[in-house]
Amino acid sequence: MNIKEIAVLLFDNFETLDVMGPVEVFGFLPECKIRFISFYGKWLTSSQKVTVETEHVKESNFDVLLIPGGAGTRILCKDVGFLFKLQRHAEHAKLCMTVCTGSALLAKTPLLDGRKATSNKRAFHWVMSLNESVHWQPRARWVRDGKFYTSSGISAGIDMALQVVADFHGYDQALSIANRMEYVWNENADDDPFCLEV
Amino acid sequence: MNIKEIAVLLFDNFETLDVMGPVEVFGFLPECKIRFISFYGKWLTSSQKVTVETEHVKESNFDVLLIPGGAGTRILCKDVGFLFKLQRHAEHAKLCMTVCTGSALLAKTPLLDGRKATSNKRAFHWVMSLNESVHWQPRARWVRDGKFYTSSGISAGIDMALQVVADFHGYDQALSIANRMEYVWNENADDDPFCLEV
Repeated sequence: MNIKEIAVLLFDNFETLDVMGPVEVFGFLPECKIRFISFYGKWLTSSQKVTVETEHVKESNFDVLLIPGGAGTRILCKDVGFLFKLQRHAEHAKLCMTVCTGSALLAKTPLLDGRKATSNKRAFHWVMSLNESVHWQPRARWVRDGKFYTSSGISAGIDMALQVVADFHGYDQALSIANRMEYVWNENADDDPFCLEV
Repeated sequence: MNIKEIAVLLFDNFETLDVMGPVEVFGFLPECKIRFISFYGKWLTSSQKVTVETEHVKESNFDVLLIPGGAGTRILCKDVGFLFKLQRHAEHAKLCMTVCTGSALLAKTPLLDGRKATSNKRAFHWVMSLNESVHWQPRARWVRDGKFYTSSGISAGIDMALQVVADFHGYDQALSIANRMEYVWNENADDDPFCLEV
């Protein structure tokens, strides 16, 4: 699959870099369109007070759905209307990526049951408590299980996005993007300096 | 100085991560307000199609002015109306930071004359050509000269922002923020793996 369209799901109090790190990476992919979508509201504001324009979409056949984390996930993981829509979009997407506590939202649907996944290391106990059927990985910069990619906290989303580019557009393309970003890519998903004992 | 307010100057076709990397860092500073300002327009769109709300400001006594780079700088470095306002704001700010080709804009004012500065390494020849009175540093993740901090391309802005936090709020605060971001901080400004021969 050539990645041609990425839908980034925003909500109030999303974490800025969870979104903008991967957006920067995928922005370098030729002919890849990035869309900011939402289920509630049009102008949504991150915890760092970045207000971004979004669109409401009914169709949900995106190549990639990106679900960020952030403080907003604490409320949304109890919002069954939100979770219902999230599940539908995640089911239909060819790939589904979460950054940070975005995996908390996905874990509140059945889609991660029986799968390996990771999350923000400082919120790990909370995220694990949401769904014990997920095989949570405490030491991982990111995890891939089938079409689901989940990353650790915040900046780990950049490393995971580069891996997604490597998996679908080749390693050389990913390395070229990292170099253009002047980013020191943490290429090894198992090398997790922020791992906490759980 | 405790950093209490940061003004981020946006323009169309700014580079997303030039802005959002430092915003993520400074967002962790207690009681630090981040404002997105502009000279033209209200809703401004990055090269990666992120549309952000901004405000027009007349006052210009910010603690920190952050000037991102991106494709939009190619036009703006010839826009004397824009540069006049930029100079006034940069003069009045207690600290002035540029990321990537943001230093191209600042170099088109007299404020970097005789100072050390750096920029995106792939645009370095172009940036140098704009003002030969600047002591351009080809090997530097970031450079501080007085109140001016200039960084290399895109992700280097994160490392520089952490250094600004270290300089004004202490090293421990900066390291704590890097850890919360799960970011492997490139702490040494002289270690520049993206240096090109110029």
